[in-house]
Order: sequence, then structure tokens, then C-alpha cells
Amino acid sequence: MTTTATLADLSTARDVARQLRVDSVRASTSAGSGHPTSSMSAADLLAVLVTRHLRYDWDSPESDANDHLIFSKGHASPLLYAVYKAVGVVSDAELMSGYRRFGQRLQGHPTPVLPWVDVATGSLGQGLPDGVGVALAGRYLDEVPYRVWVLCGDSEMAEGSMWEALDKAAYYRLSNLVAIVDVNRLGQSGPTELQWDLDAYARRASAFGARVLTIDGHDLEEIDEALRSATDRTDDRPTVILARTLKGRGFSEVENMEGWHGKPLPKEMADRAIRELGGSSDLVVRGPVPVDEAPVSRYTTGASLPSYAVGDKIATRRAYGDALTALGGGNSRIVALDGEVGNSTFSEEFAKAFGDRYFEMYIAEQQMIAAAVGLSVRHYIPFASTFAAFLSRAYDFIRMASISRADIRLVGSHAGVEIGADGPSQMALEDLAMLRAVQGSTVLYPSDAVSTASLVAAMVELDGVSYLRTTRGAYPVLYENDSSFPVGGSKVLRSGPSDAVTLVGAGVTLHECLAAAALLESEGIAARVIDLYSVKPVDTATLSEAVAATDGRILVAEDHHPEGGLGSAVAEALLAAGTPSVRFTHLAVRDLPGSGSTAEQLAAQEIDADHIAAAARALVS
Amino acid sequence: MTTTATLADLSTARDVARQLRVDSVRASTSAGSGHPTSSMSAADLLAVLVTRHLRYDWDSPESDANDHLIFSKGHASPLLYAVYKAVGVVSDAELMSGYRRFGQRLQGHPTPVLPWVDVATGSLGQGLPDGVGVALAGRYLDEVPYRVWVLCGDSEMAEGSMWEALDKAAYYRLSNLVAIVDVNRLGQSGPTELQWDLDAYARRASAFGARVLTIDGHDLEEIDEALRSATDRTDDRPTVILARTLKGRGFSEVENMEGWHGKPLPKEMADRAIRELGGSSDLVVRGPVPVDEAPVSRYTTGASLPSYAVGDKIATRRAYGDALTALGGGNSRIVALDGEVGNSTFSEEFAKAFGDRYFEMYIAEQQMIAAAVGLSVRHYIPFASTFAAFLSRAYDFIRMASISRADIRLVGSHAGVEIGADGPSQMALEDLAMLRAVQGSTVLYPSDAVSTASLVAAMVELDGVSYLRTTRGAYPVLYENDSSFPVGGSKVLRSGPSDAVTLVGAGVTLHECLAAAALLESEGIAARVIDLYSVKPVDTATLSEAVAATDGRILVAEDHHPEGGLGSAVAEALLAAGTPSVRFTHLAVRDLPGSGSTAEQLAAQEIDADHIAAAARALVS
Repeated sequence: MTTTATLADLSTARDVARQLRVDSVRASTSAGSGHPTSSMSAADLLAVLVTRHLRYDWDSPESDANDHLIFSKGHASPLLYAVYKAVGVVSDAELMSGYRRFGQRLQGHPTPVLPWVDVATGSLGQGLPDGVGVALAGRYLDEVPYRVWVLCGDSEMAEGSMWEALDKAAYYRLSNLVAIVDVNRLGQSGPTELQWDLDAYARRASAFGARVLTIDGHDLEEIDEALRSATDRTDDRPTVILARTLKGRGFSEVENMEGWHGKPLPKEMADRAIRELGGSSDLVVRGPVPVDEAPVSRYTTGASLPSYAVGDKIATRRAYGDALTALGGGNSRIVALDGEVGNSTFSEEFAKAFGDRYFEMYIAEQQMIAAAVGLSVRHYIPFASTFAAFLSRAYDFIRMASISRADIRLVGSHAGVEIGADGPSQMALEDLAMLRAVQGSTVLYPSDAVSTASLVAAMVELDGVSYLRTTRGAYPVLYENDSSFPVGGSKVLRSGPSDAVTLVGAGVTLHECLAAAALLESEGIAARVIDLYSVKPVDTATLSEAVAATDGRILVAEDHHPEGGLGSAVAEALLAAGTPSVRFTHLAVRDLPGSGSTAEQLAAQEIDADHIAAAARALVS
Repeated sequence: MTTTATLADLSTARDVARQLRVDSVRASTSAGSGHPTSSMSAADLLAVLVTRHLRYDWDSPESDANDHLIFSKGHASPLLYAVYKAVGVVSDAELMSGYRRFGQRLQGHPTPVLPWVDVATGSLGQGLPDGVGVALAGRYLDEVPYRVWVLCGDSEMAEGSMWEALDKAAYYRLSNLVAIVDVNRLGQSGPTELQWDLDAYARRASAFGARVLTIDGHDLEEIDEALRSATDRTDDRPTVILARTLKGRGFSEVENMEGWHGKPLPKEMADRAIRELGGSSDLVVRGPVPVDEAPVSRYTTGASLPSYAVGDKIATRRAYGDALTALGGGNSRIVALDGEVGNSTFSEEFAKAFGDRYFEMYIAEQQMIAAAVGLSVRHYIPFASTFAAFLSRAYDFIRMASISRADIRLVGSHAGVEIGADGPSQMALEDLAMLRAVQGSTVLYPSDAVSTASLVAAMVELDGVSYLRTTRGAYPVLYENDSSFPVGGSKVLRSGPSDAVTLVGAGVTLHECLAAAALLESEGIAARVIDLYSVKPVDTATLSEAVAATDGRILVAEDHHPEGGLGSAVAEALLAAGTPSVRFTHLAVRDLPGSGSTAEQLAAQEIDADHIAAAARALVS
């Protein structure tokens, strides 16, 4: 798989390791912040990896054949950037004047603004789960023999997400995944929980299904042999290399000492460190390059969305399953993941049709999102679904996905009190706030099957994190199949010249708004009704126009807590647009719900048609 | 430890098990929803536990001496409620007419509206982490020999949080914790990942430091012996009992069959099930009662808060550490937890002073929040701190804490782009949105040391989930030490009769607003400045009054994404209050940040004094 160029020998690797340490010290001291000691512990590991095992064409970071290198311990960015210098893609000048500086790409923690970085790291316990996603793509979709190398910290092994990752790596037999754990014993504020108990780590990783290799992380021969053995394809387990290392390795004033996490060395100390380490250098050494290999070719045909008849009762979650399956037939890069509730979210329809592009993540929502991110690294189009409430389990992963500029699509079913008897633990009542606050996100909340299908199709093309909120119950189809639902738009379902009030809803509350409008009409009050299916971006123009047409009166009803959801989106939009004289009524889920029927829940939270009509009457009077 | 009343024998336990199964079927069928088959698999386990091992005074659920019983698999609520009937605290009538009904306490998933329920469950993978918190209280604080029994599902073992829990249970030698895993092989949509591979579960739990017992979960003798052995205090490890069971055990039409998760039996089928199971009954059998034992007595003395001099530069995160330590001296029920960043959040000050009331949770934020919830069950006053960005890791746990009505206090440091060079992975820019959307929450964001200390003191008394956002950098003390900062209030720092615009900030942006006001003053523009330290609840009256006084002009600047934070709180408040003619400018973090100095970051996001002044000028012109 590699070109025949002669590999660097271990003596060269030793020189590179020295340079990586020196450059980690130099870069962080020049920046005045950073994590040199966390870099120095892993320098030997990276020197051997990069010069002798990582198959990477540094001139073509987009090559499909390249291995992947992920720093799960993202704070070791000085080391990563020193590696980039050592392979000749970052200059010493950039390293010294760009690291951690404003407007520069060598950020405090790595992000994909650098072409060799797959995913943003720095929130610990995420790089390995992301790597599982990349390895899934390699093994099951691309079918290209690239390897995924993940440098992990020992502190982050306390994160449950690392064990979700190893569990799934073993379940999916990801022999293309190698986790290298830099066990340097010291965390930020003191020793780690397991310190140098490598046996304990080994027992755990082994019990989770990994092949485990335990080494001295400063012995280049041991490292070399472990990395070689990690790529032995006769074993179909993922590999975990546990490397016993010293934090600050190589500089006697900090080596293996507490109190030096995340601290650059003061200038004079840095000078002594560089001397002790053997001085600075500008070696450029490249390792093996992969043989170019194209991913398995994929067909693409046209897809037609499912069609529905106006008035038929169809749950939007079912329409999601229908639409995803239809789209999947036309676009083989669409993949789906679920948290073992595919028979509730209806992702199971896709799984039945395209089992080879469906990844069951069981009840591990963090790993589900991370796998979606990893699949997006390889340019797949992932849709990840579970109960909307349980997406909150993975909020940190969603946040980091946005920093990674990953294009991932999330679908949360069973939103709000509408679900009825299952009670509050199953009710998403914070999801709109949570997803709206993600940088660059898109938040969609359709009310019927036709708009759902249309928006699922739109999500295929969206950049960044997009989110579709679906509803448990079945409600009437509102739109003709040829209607269009642009992201950022809305639909005015009722309007007339004598409209006295605007009612805004989405999902179940849109149907309640329509019923309220009918009630009001019977009393001689005309109400405009807006389907705000695009919560972010929001259709400010239509909202402002409606408010102006209805004498400032606008009512928003939502199946969500009052903060950060539909009402916030409308309030912020109207104020930002300078819409004058707004008279705003906001109905939302204010009390802690219990069990009950959908009708009882909506009534108790005062977001049903009767309460909407009453509040509208009060606005008009 | 138990009273001398004769224990029920296993034959009685067998009768109870039969009744638990029958009642699980009856309750769910009568409600028309619920999880009978997931209850039936664990009925034998619960029957033996409740009649012979759980030490619980059912007449005094508040007794300090009681064992704790947590259903981590909360969907087995029919079984839990059938247990309550079997011990005589819930009537058959309530079980049959109350389960999952509106306004009733026997909700679809258990919550503490029931006096015997410690924590809300139903989001899987949380009951065991919560139990770790209760067990920490028992072993280290109460020093009462109650045991914590947690019924876990096998599906939820895929959640990383379960492994965080076992890791911490072993680390803290929680021999008072017993996890009983109901390995019934079937999840919601199909078989679980490990199915009946009990050896795999055993290897994992054992590697994580637990004592593991593997049993046939339908053999009452085996169950009895395992439960007895689990309470053997000569071992200081937590115990994990792996019980091989059959889902739907006891009714041949569903036993061990797929497709019956979360489905009540139709009426005729339920009748057949009850017949096959041996008919319904109203046995009441109680198990052992603990000897009353009071927790270790605790002193309480008065505490005086730290004092600061106006103008001194003190980081609010440091003031948090100062205040918590001062308060801890006066109230011994205050406890602190941290995610291994205590030297950044300054919780380390408390740890140094009160090591016996500080729990290092290492980098496991989910377990940190769950431990806080568990400690609150035992009426401790937990403060849990980490970087604000990493609280997003535990959002599902925070959400569930609010459903548990747990009184927990969260402190997030290093908020916003203010942190500078570390980059976006470390910047909390969604935390205000996330915490505001939690039902019943309080969200505080002080700008100086005095207000921080005062608000930390206020948090001690707060119900529900409260959150304090602190800042990395040191900024001038603004207030005299005797100032008061009521929750829901605000401070007007500058005002006068000719104010032309209102500037609203909190944290770093308040200092920028003050600087902007000084700039504007030099140009003859008077600006009112409001310190909105209480983001939820928000001081609508002061905001409305200011808007009225400044001709509708109000500018909000925040170090947070535009959605759901300070600006949303103000916009929603003004619209809800019907404040007329608002002219609203909202400055927030709109672009994805990188690295840089604090000043560069604030300027780039247009939330520094210069941009605030410019935007204010535009509003006024």
C-alpha cells in the first residue's frame, strides 16, 4: 500500500522527536500560552508514527487514500503543529508567529481551518468517537484501506464517551482504528485517576473488545513495533496502544512534575529547555505515502419524494422515514444512524432499504453524533435520529461539530408535551433553544408530512449542523405535494384584509392555531395563521408584515419551554427588524408536565386551540 | 442493622414476584401504554430484593436510615409501582386508575412526586450515576450504612455514563452501591448489542473495578444469595449483579420475543397473561426495616463573605472560590465537585479548606452532575463546577435534574470569547441558552467579585437548578461590599435625566458598556448602563423603565451566541411586558471565533466598548 521510497530510520525519528519537543516549547513560549508539557510526553510517539507509519500525502490532504490523524487530546496542539513543520507543510515562521494569534490558523486547539485536521478537538473525549466515524466510513463505505490514528490523553479516558467509542469500534470490528493513549500520569490539576496503572487501562480496553499493546512511550523501538503491529490486518479488532510516558519529557525542570499543565515556559526557562533538548532545527522528514485508491464508486439517480393527500393524518416522524428512504434511493452518500429507537423515529425504514448505509449506534447518543461527524469528514451525508429529548445527551458533541464545520443532520422525534403519557423525561422541551444557539445551525420544525419531506430533501444540501424536529402524533396533511418550503421561509395558511391578530405555530401548535382561528372566525374575529416551519433562519419579513397588518398583535404558541424556542425567535426577529408597536403574547410550556393524553397536556400548558383563542381574544379586545 | 421481625421466605417472594408481573400487565393494559415486558423480566429480582434485603421503612420514606432504590431503567415503572402496591403504600385502585393518567403521581416514568422516588429516570444511563452520588453521601458525609440499589437495563450499558459511574464507584470504594443489571437481551427495536453475553458485561464491570456476580435472574435462590453477598462489607468495591433474564417472563405469548417493547397487552391478551401467571392478588409483604441511625451531626456557624475593594481587579471565578470557601465554613452541608479543573474554576480553594466535602470527579461531567443530584437527594448543597463550555456535556443530566426537582448549583468558568487564545472549543457560547431553557432554573452572570460572592450566597438557598457564569479575566470590582444583589434584580450603574440610550451587559460586556458610556459621555451622549446579573429571572421592571426613559433605545451586548442568551432574555421580557416602541440593538458573538487576545476577540465580534459606542450612536442618531 505504500510507495517504495525508503523509510526514515529510527535514528531520524529520534531527531524528529527532539525537534518536535523543541518546537512545542518554542511555539508555546512565543505565544505566551499553550500546553508544551502535554506535547513533550507524546513527541516520541508522533515522531515514529509520522516518519514511519502514517501513510499520508502531505501535498494532497484531500486524497481519499490518506490515513487520518486525529488529536483527541487537542490541547497538544503545539505538538501537532510541530509535526506539520516537520513534514514541511507549515513554516517555522508560521509556527513562531502564528500559533494562538488572532486571525491565524494555528489555533489554541486544532480545527479544520487547517487542511490536515479532520475535526475540531479540545473538548476531551471526542476525537476518538469522531475517529470511529471515519473508520466506519473506511471499512463499510469507502472500502479504502486507510487507517485512523487517534492520539488520546489519559485524563480523557474518564469520559464515558471514550468507552462508547471503544465499544462501537469493537462492535463494528474497526481494525482500521488505532488509539494511542499518552499515559503521562498528570492531568490539569493533579495526578489522573489511574495514574500509571497501565494494567487497569489494559483490562478495561481489552474488556471493551480492543487489542491492547502496552509500551514505554519513550522507547522508539517499542513504539515502532507497536505501530507496525497495530496495522496487522489479521486481527479485526481496533487497537489501543497504551504508552507510559512522562509529561514534560526531556526537560529536567518540568519532566514528570505537577503544576506545569497548560503553562508555557518563561523565556529563560525555554532557552534552558531548548539547550537541554539539543537545540532547535528545521528538519523536514516525510513518511510513507499511500497508493492512490478511489473509494468504491457510488451510483446516483434521481429521487422522487413521497406524496401525501391533503387531510390524511400522517405523523411527521413517519414522513421523515419515508423521505429519507426515498432520497437514499437517489443519493448513495446519504447514510443514517440511530440510537436504537429507529422504530420510533422511523429511521428503520431507511435501515430496511439500505442496511449497508445504516449504522445502529444503540443507546449511545454521544457516539452517534461523533460518528455522524466522522462520516461527514469522508463527505457522506449523515442523518442521525433519536428522541429529541435525548439529543441533549450529545450537546457538547453538537457544539464541537459546529466548530468542526461538519455537515451533519439531526432529527429529533417525540418533541414536547404532545407525546402524552410517557412523561417529562421523554419530552424534548429545550431542544429548539439548544440547537438554535449552535453557531451556523439551521432549525426546522414542520407541521405536516409534505413540508417534512421537502425539508428533509433540503437538509441534504445544507452546510453545518441542521436539525429537524418531528412530532409523535399523526396530524392532517396541510399542503399540496408541489408546495415549496425554502429554508428561512414560512407559510401563511390563513389571511385576509380584516385580520385582527396573527397566530404563529409550528408542529402540533400550528394545528392548534388553525383550530383556534376557526373558533375565532365563528366569533367574527379574523386571524392570520403562520406556519413557522423554519425556526432558524426565521422569516422576519413575513412576520413583520403580518404584525403590521394585524395592528401589532401577534401570538406565538409553542410546545417548548418559553426560553430560546419559537417565541424567542419571533421576539428577537421583530425587535431586530424594528417592527413598531408589537403586542406580543407568548404561549409555551411553563409548568413541569406529568403524564396524560396529548389533549390534556396541551390544555394544561395552555397551548391548545381553546387557550390560543382565548389569548387571541384578549389581545384583540 | 435490621429489626428482628421474621423475614419473608422465598416462597413468599415467589408469590410477590407473581403479583408484580400480574400487576405490571394490569396497570399498563389499563393505562393503554407502558412497558410490561421490561417489568416482567425484573420481577423476580425485585421480589427478593424488596421482601428480604431492601431495608426500608415504608411508613417513613424520609428516614435517614433507609436504603435507596433507584430504577435506572425508568421505563419499568409498572414494576416499581407494583412494588409500591406490594409493600402497601399504593392501593390497587390507584395502580389501576392512576398509572400514566393526567394529574396523577404514577407517571409513565418515575419522578420524585412520589415520596419513595429519589430521582427522575427515563433518560437511560442516569439512575446509576445518580446512585453514585447518593452512595457518596452515605459513605463520606452521612456515614450511615444505608445501601443504594439500582436496577439497570442492559440496553443502557451502551451509555458511556454508566461506565463513568462504575469508574467513580470503584474509585470512591462505594461498597454501599449495588447495580442489578436486568440482562433481558432485547432493546426497543431489536436485540441489544451484547445480547446475553454476560461474560462480556462481567469483564467490563470487573475491569472497571466492580465486584461482579452473575446469576440466573429467575432463580430466587441465586438472586437471594447474590443480594446477600452484595451487602458483604468485607469487600470495599461496588457490586454489579448481572442477571440473565427473559423479557416478558412468565407469559408464553410474549416471553423472549421481539416486538413487545413498550407495548401494553391488549385486553384479551392481558386476561390470558394474568391466567397464565396465576391470577391477580393483593398481597402486602414488607421486608426489613433499618435501625434508625442519624447522620453524623454537623456544625453550622455564621459565615461572612469575602470583601473586596472597589477598583481592584479580581476575576469572578476567583471570587466564586473565595465565596464558596467562606460559605463552606459556615454551612457544613455545602459540598463541591469539579471536573478536574479546580485550579481554573477556583473550586480548589474549597477543596483545600474542606477536603472531606470535595469530590474530584475528574473529566466526567455527566457523572459530576449526577453526583450532585445524588448528594442533593441526601439534602446536601452541591456546587459543581467546570469550564462553562463543558457543562454542555451534561445537558441531559441537567434537564433530568430539573425533572427530579433536585436543588443543584452549577458554576461555569471561562465563558465566551473573553478567554482569548484557547479557541472556540473552550468558549462557552451556548450556556446561557442551554440553562435558561431548563424548567425552573435560575441563571446568574455577575460582573464583579462583590456581586459574585453575594450571588453564590444566594444560590445556597435556591431551589432547582441554578447556574452561575464566571469569567476568566480579572476586572475591576464595581460594588461596595454591602451592596445587595437579589435574584431577579439588576443594578443601574449609570443613569441621569438626559439618558439617550440604555446599555445592557453582564460579565465582560458590562465593563465594555461602562467604557462605551464614558466614550459617549465625552461626545455629549448620556447612556444608562444596566448590570443584568440575573439573566433568569430577569428584571423586567428596570428594563422597561430604562427603555421608557431613553426613548425606546436599548442595546444589549453579550459574550454569547445571539440566540437564547442575554439579548433573548431582554427581548422576551420587553415584548411580554408590552413595553412600547422599543428600538433594540443586539450585539453578540455571531461569527465562529478562533484564537487571539481578549481585546482582539471582543473587537472582532463587535462586542467591545468601541463597537458598543458606535452602535449606540447609530441608535441615537
